[in-house]
Amino acid sequence: MVSVGVVGASGYVGGEILRLLLQHGGVDVTLATSRTMKGEYVFKAHPNLKGFTELKFTDDDPVTAASKVDLLFLSVPHGSSVKVTPEIVEMGTRLIDMTGDFRLKDPSLYPIWYGFEHPAPDLLPRFVYGLPETHREEIRNARFVANPGCIASSTIYSLLPFARSGMINDVTVVDAKTGSSASGNAANRASVYSERYNSIRPYRAAGHRHTAEIEQELSQHAGRKVKVALSAHAVNMVRGIQTTSSVFTDREVAEVDVWKIMRQTYRGEPFVRFIRDRDGVYRLPDPKITVGSNFVDIGFEIDRHTGRVVVISTIDNLIKGAAGNSVHSMNLMLGFPETQGLSTIPLHPA
Amino acid sequence: MVSVGVVGASGYVGGEILRLLLQHGGVDVTLATSRTMKGEYVFKAHPNLKGFTELKFTDDDPVTAASKVDLLFLSVPHGSSVKVTPEIVEMGTRLIDMTGDFRLKDPSLYPIWYGFEHPAPDLLPRFVYGLPETHREEIRNARFVANPGCIASSTIYSLLPFARSGMINDVTVVDAKTGSSASGNAANRASVYSERYNSIRPYRAAGHRHTAEIEQELSQHAGRKVKVALSAHAVNMVRGIQTTSSVFTDREVAEVDVWKIMRQTYRGEPFVRFIRDRDGVYRLPDPKITVGSNFVDIGFEIDRHTGRVVVISTIDNLIKGAAGNSVHSMNLMLGFPETQGLSTIPLHPA
Amino acid sequence: MVSVGVVGASGYVGGEILRLLLQHGGVDVTLATSRTMKGEYVFKAHPNLKGFTELKFTDDDPVTAASKVDLLFLSVPHGSSVKVTPEIVEMGTRLIDMTGDFRLKDPSLYPIWYGFEHPAPDLLPRFVYGLPETHREEIRNARFVANPGCIASSTIYSLLPFARSGMINDVTVVDAKTGSSASGNAANRASVYSERYNSIRPYRAAGHRHTAEIEQELSQHAGRKVKVALSAHAVNMVRGIQTTSSVFTDREVAEVDVWKIMRQTYRGEPFVRFIRDRDGVYRLPDPKITVGSNFVDIGFEIDRHTGRVVVISTIDNLIKGAAGNSVHSMNLMLGFPETQGLSTIPLHPA
Amino acid sequence: MVSVGVVGASGYVGGEILRLLLQHGGVDVTLATSRTMKGEYVFKAHPNLKGFTELKFTDDDPVTAASKVDLLFLSVPHGSSVKVTPEIVEMGTRLIDMTGDFRLKDPSLYPIWYGFEHPAPDLLPRFVYGLPETHREEIRNARFVANPGCIASSTIYSLLPFARSGMINDVTVVDAKTGSSASGNAANRASVYSERYNSIRPYRAAGHRHTAEIEQELSQHAGRKVKVALSAHAVNMVRGIQTTSSVFTDREVAEVDVWKIMRQTYRGEPFVRFIRDRDGVYRLPDPKITVGSNFVDIGFEIDRHTGRVVVISTIDNLIKGAAGNSVHSMNLMLGFPETQGLSTIPLHPA
Repeated sequence: MVSVGVVGASGYVGGEILRLLLQHGGVDVTLATSRTMKGEYVFKAHPNLKGFTELKFTDDDPVTAASKVDLLFLSVPHGSSVKVTPEIVEMGTRLIDMTGDFRLKDPSLYPIWYGFEHPAPDLLPRFVYGLPETHREEIRNARFVANPGCIASSTIYSLLPFARSGMINDVTVVDAKTGSSASGNAANRASVYSERYNSIRPYRAAGHRHTAEIEQELSQHAGRKVKVALSAHAVNMVRGIQTTSSVFTDREVAEVDVWKIMRQTYRGEPFVRFIRDRDGVYRLPDPKITVGSNFVDIGFEIDRHTGRVVVISTIDNLIKGAAGNSVHSMNLMLGFPETQGLSTIPLHPA
Repeated sequence: MVSVGVVGASGYVGGEILRLLLQHGGVDVTLATSRTMKGEYVFKAHPNLKGFTELKFTDDDPVTAASKVDLLFLSVPHGSSVKVTPEIVEMGTRLIDMTGDFRLKDPSLYPIWYGFEHPAPDLLPRFVYGLPETHREEIRNARFVANPGCIASSTIYSLLPFARSGMINDVTVVDAKTGSSASGNAANRASVYSERYNSIRPYRAAGHRHTAEIEQELSQHAGRKVKVALSAHAVNMVRGIQTTSSVFTDREVAEVDVWKIMRQTYRGEPFVRFIRDRDGVYRLPDPKITVGSNFVDIGFEIDRHTGRVVVISTIDNLIKGAAGNSVHSMNLMLGFPETQGLSTIPLHPA
Repeated sequence: MVSVGVVGASGYVGGEILRLLLQHGGVDVTLATSRTMKGEYVFKAHPNLKGFTELKFTDDDPVTAASKVDLLFLSVPHGSSVKVTPEIVEMGTRLIDMTGDFRLKDPSLYPIWYGFEHPAPDLLPRFVYGLPETHREEIRNARFVANPGCIASSTIYSLLPFARSGMINDVTVVDAKTGSSASGNAANRASVYSERYNSIRPYRAAGHRHTAEIEQELSQHAGRKVKVALSAHAVNMVRGIQTTSSVFTDREVAEVDVWKIMRQTYRGEPFVRFIRDRDGVYRLPDPKITVGSNFVDIGFEIDRHTGRVVVISTIDNLIKGAAGNSVHSMNLMLGFPETQGLSTIPLHPA
Repeated sequence: MVSVGVVGASGYVGGEILRLLLQHGGVDVTLATSRTMKGEYVFKAHPNLKGFTELKFTDDDPVTAASKVDLLFLSVPHGSSVKVTPEIVEMGTRLIDMTGDFRLKDPSLYPIWYGFEHPAPDLLPRFVYGLPETHREEIRNARFVANPGCIASSTIYSLLPFARSGMINDVTVVDAKTGSSASGNAANRASVYSERYNSIRPYRAAGHRHTAEIEQELSQHAGRKVKVALSAHAVNMVRGIQTTSSVFTDREVAEVDVWKIMRQTYRGEPFVRFIRDRDGVYRLPDPKITVGSNFVDIGFEIDRHTGRVVVISTIDNLIKGAAGNSVHSMNLMLGFPETQGLSTIPLHPA
């Protein structure tokens, strides 16, 4: 069986990758690293895994880790990946990088959005932006994949049909609402339960990093510069992202037009659901019914009053927005059926 | 002492008016009506009031109720007020109407936003739009006040400085997040806890009624037609509204410009707080620290990338967004100090 | 493939049975009934199932339903099962009854705990109490199974080792905390989100029906009458049950003694995990890490000060406490591997 | 006006004392200390206070602080108070100690329950246990008050009528459920929102420190040794404590008996409400309707099956369980009306 490893496996994304891999059936998880938990069982960090694995954390550095497996997931802080990837790339081990270090193609964007000069700009073209719905064939042939950011992927799914069809206008307003798991398990005043519960925290009213990759990907499909005005809020829940996008269209569009571009864009996609109903409780996408799955749920409403289409999408930030999507890429890279290990039905109610 | 009554007192807004009046000190609550709970103690509907009043619900119809008190709060479903107000207006009893029936000045807007032809268009000019910060003197002299909608007031507070200064552009995008209490205490599938918990429900992606009153009020101040693209979401909490508005400005604005119009607009206002900090957990308005008070908290961020100002405001939907604001109007109408009964410090953490 | 059906499939338990069966791989779900939703897609009631089935609800009565399948799950209100089971029993279709109608062996207990005289006492011995860990062989050979109550099963798992070993005293105090899904999806004032959120509702301080089946099962194992003083609270979450039991022991017991009876009782059980750690966040069972799985997590603490063992167990009320357990029984009855369809790793964090 | 100060004012209890004092009307808050936030506005730690005070934190040590005010609240970690109180006692400044350092009368209990040898056992008799309902006259005349623990006070309120009447048996089982604010604002893995949300954490299944003060106070009233088997759980909410107590009585008791001892014990008490209703949503005490007030809500149910009375009480842990109760003591010590600053109506729904 193929052996895979996870560097940075004690974080939430790392834990979610482990969960999916342990249920995958086609790969062997042989390595999980954590600098702080060396020697401990992985279920000490991820109590849900108790009973499913006896694996223990090692403190292998990323390069050593890469030398021990066929494919490596790198789940480290932004800016840390680029310090070790050059060596791994040279080694040639298949790599899925969960950070933002190789998502942007234009190195000049790194100082603007990430605050650092990219130290290895020549490597940027060697990484594929790992969104299977838009880069499927490239991922299949890739050795190095940069997994998209969670808000980025939810937004791109919403806007892609409009970008592709040329319907999108210059600036699209995106309001993102995220669960707490998107900010990791670090303990600080902002993450204390008593401060976070019942809160709607506008943690990034403007200037969110994911803006850059959203614009990069959408502009590619639109054939011209697309701009996104993104505001991100942390809401009172653990999992899930919802993005509400206001797409201003030049001409008036009808429902049938939107359905058409939606279907054209996502025909046959195993992980895209359209949620749009005239009645009932779940008339539009809601993390409530998406969380726990690798789905992106998409719906829309037309607002003639202001000439916009409101497009709403939701994902589980740790699955479709991170671990699930990276396993999807792994499936493509290693030749597994695309949906292997990713077809769990979400829980309801939960 | 002045005697006041509440029609529709078993609902959440009615209960909140009772709570504030019972702590007010200057008025005597002599009447609380409920069609379904006649003869029951009001604390049966509002268990928090236990120990504070022995008042019981009557089933007086609104007109009879108006004949028994000096000032009446009318907290009934939209469309029900207009059926009884003509008689009350004739009677002359001071009236604060919590519904949308008299908020709009232009009768032609009712079919569009409320779905009914307004049956008493001649009465519309007799009602003052009850937002003290913009209609203080009119309210002082008014007998009939139309209390603003909750999302409307949060949005107006955000955008008013921009409207007044002429900075606002044609279309402003507003994303609203509300707690469950905004939709009342009716039991239906959508309000069942198991369905509502952990949810972000886009219950009105476009076409929200409050759009009309927001545009009416802002246009008045801007001196031209202002348009608002409002999307409303129900999030996982009971109280509070947050609105995130993207104001696209024609010219580039600096922080100092925004501060200037904010201060000009709200100088001396007792219930407006500016929340904007460089560090800490609460850098921008969050319902977490507003709920339980009559404050509107306002903050902003400038987004040069897309040429917008992101303005965020939060209120407690049942207080500043309904009951508290109506008591503020009552204070003005009856000559009490403005802040009487409205200065409670919110709880934190809660 | 074996065909199975679910009567009462629009409720939460019914929906959860459908979810598990659709992922089971060994059975064919051919029938799902709902009196109120006839003709609608099952995903209209259970939005999580969208994309996994095109099945529609029928309004077949239970007896007709039983005639169309190899095995039937009956998920109807307490007291409704017994009206139709005599005919189904005669027909001989394999039946798993989710109600309390056939859990008690002694018919005289029905008037006391359920408020009705049992109309078919002769059928009581034909049903097996469907707790696989205690009635495995009987279930294997059974045609008719009465699935345990959710609080009952959590409590029984906690106390079984003490009952078997004779360690248990006359009265054991059990404090139960349940999520909202345990009370179904009916809309009423008590289930309204605004009333239920942030609440700890002691909905059955004494007299909970599950007391009867707990005492029946434990007494059987203890060889004498065991009494349980159960108090049940609804807490602020959707899924999960935790029971905290105070077992007063005659003699002083040591940790090693408790471990010994725990291990003896649960050796080899696929769905029992012991959760007991010296440090870390999850030192004892917590629904947080159990929900979404078919596990019962058990832990304990010895309280020398009062001579008791505090035993804590948690389950997902809809899985191990209902649907999952019934599918476990189905696996036994139909000869599938016990764990088929039941080995999903729970999500964390969620 | 009387000047008061708070040592340890950046914690949750300290902040709540500040909130109550700022609304009190009879005292002047002249000092708030914090070692970590010296020089910062108190609203930086307690954002709810913004707009109500311009006070800044000092880093005065407790003894210096005591020299500057008429009455001092000491809100520091357990074990820290006793290091500074000897000097303050000598100075004679009125002191309300929020820690457990002077709650127990018997110094031999400190090593057992708190893990340290009490360094100033001679001072123990000089402190009054600050529960106004049981020590009112002593508090009135006291200079030094030891404020009760939050779970302790909720439990004592429940059991006091039974202790006084001699109805209580040897061991009473108490199940406590607390909100997160009871464990303070320290950031650590256990307090991270993603780990704490949706959880029921049995953080002290046995051996909770408050056991000692509960037994001390109840035994005093019962005239014999009373034992309490306490298990404490942290549930998914920020504020509130509920204790469910199983009082086993020697003889059978009727409802009327329980009502009688309840009324005898709490006649005229301004902060005790009885919550017991035949129908409706709030039939027994629920933190939902207590939080935000200084009430203790008490209710009960008789369980003939096991010969116990189930007594349920709820408080707001930060108010009646800490700050509110200490302000109540302050009112008694300084001759204010007992309820001054403590009569706020709680919010509902919230």
